[in-house]
Amino acid sequence: MPALEVCLTPELIHLYPTTEKIVVVTDILRATSCMVTALSEGIDSITPVSTTTECRKLQKMGYLAAAERNGNQVEGFDLGNSPLSYLENDFTGRKLAMTTTNGTIAINKSKSASEVYIGAFLNLSVLSDYLKAKDHDILIVCSGWKGMVSYEDTLFAGALATKLGKSFEIACDSAFISIEQYANAKGDLLSAIRNSSHYHRLQKLKISKDIEFCLEVDRYMLIPRLDNNQLVPV
Amino acid sequence: MPALEVCLTPELIHLYPTTEKIVVVTDILRATSCMVTALSEGIDSITPVSTTTECRKLQKMGYLAAAERNGNQVEGFDLGNSPLSYLENDFTGRKLAMTTTNGTIAINKSKSASEVYIGAFLNLSVLSDYLKAKDHDILIVCSGWKGMVSYEDTLFAGALATKLGKSFEIACDSAFISIEQYANAKGDLLSAIRNSSHYHRLQKLKISKDIEFCLEVDRYMLIPRLDNNQLVPV
Repeated sequence: MPALEVCLTPELIHLYPTTEKIVVVTDILRATSCMVTALSEGIDSITPVSTTTECRKLQKMGYLAAAERNGNQVEGFDLGNSPLSYLENDFTGRKLAMTTTNGTIAINKSKSASEVYIGAFLNLSVLSDYLKAKDHDILIVCSGWKGMVSYEDTLFAGALATKLGKSFEIACDSAFISIEQYANAKGDLLSAIRNSSHYHRLQKLKISKDIEFCLEVDRYMLIPRLDNNQLVPV
Repeated sequence: MPALEVCLTPELIHLYPTTEKIVVVTDILRATSCMVTALSEGIDSITPVSTTTECRKLQKMGYLAAAERNGNQVEGFDLGNSPLSYLENDFTGRKLAMTTTNGTIAINKSKSASEVYIGAFLNLSVLSDYLKAKDHDILIVCSGWKGMVSYEDTLFAGALATKLGKSFEIACDSAFISIEQYANAKGDLLSAIRNSSHYHRLQKLKISKDIEFCLEVDRYMLIPRLDNNQLVPV
């Protein structure tokens, strides 16, 4: 039976050998929710980069460029970290470069994995069905907040682990904790998340519409996959 | 209102500045349960050290020496990591040197804190009453297992945070997660812990009596405090 592990923050990824595993990266508020949305709404590919300098370089090469730090759009870039941007504008066929405080760092730390996918509540079921069929060891990497554990990413890890269910061996206590957290919260994700510290941080930014959108389950049927440093649909 | 944070593993302690905080270190299975028991049963003081070499040095100077790696007693030392040893023998007045896989490392990583205390279910209520009266920022440091998050330490963090209650601001999502885990498990700690990966690891060592003992709430009224690199009763 394949093993399922959860790494609660990228700061702990060195404890989980990734080379033989499928990695699912999540950053619910808001990077991976943006990625699923952007590709579903017509963006051609996404290049996740760790620094604004790299992002700027790609912008100069003609990429649409999204940059977020501490929840805010960085000056001089086309977009921040709101998934709604991809519904409000038509970016069909554009290549997107993206850098965020947490999510793109988690992706870059996961690159040694055999396969890397992007998860969010927005693509939960299609992702879990796809992974079940793979029948392979899985590590879910939560992006957290500046190295710290974040509640909403833990919830998503628990949701995916719950969906994957009994076909996998729960191989670390973090996975077990995530599953319990999700069981507590699944009846009302938004109310559960309202208690978290990240929510309070983001609330100050007035992005409550973004948050509601990011908690919508199964809006999209698309799975972003990392392929040659680019995210493209499976 | 003072802040309450939980660091789920010593691998994340660099994210929590400790200098102005009271730190409570916990390693339920079994280092901090041993420490509370040893001092309560007559041990004079405990010197926690990170390596077996340091522990051996103190043994040669006349200390009683306890050393555990991967759950087992290390050859050539007087004791391993079983709290029951301190009930089965009379070590009254002895100085103890101790090194364990996780707990003593967590203590040594916490030394820059303004005050360091040792917590376990065995001294839960006396510790929480003492800390409430301090009215100061608190960081609970879970020892985990080789850097990874462990369920039983998370439960203890949640139990202590729940006891400290509304006198503290819950200042990170890890604290929030710990409180929820404890709320799920408090009716039957042993059954809850039986699902965890650490329990399965320890079960192989046939220490189920140790585990039951470590989950006993409020057996002792003693709080170990770190003072000049030694743990002594408050």
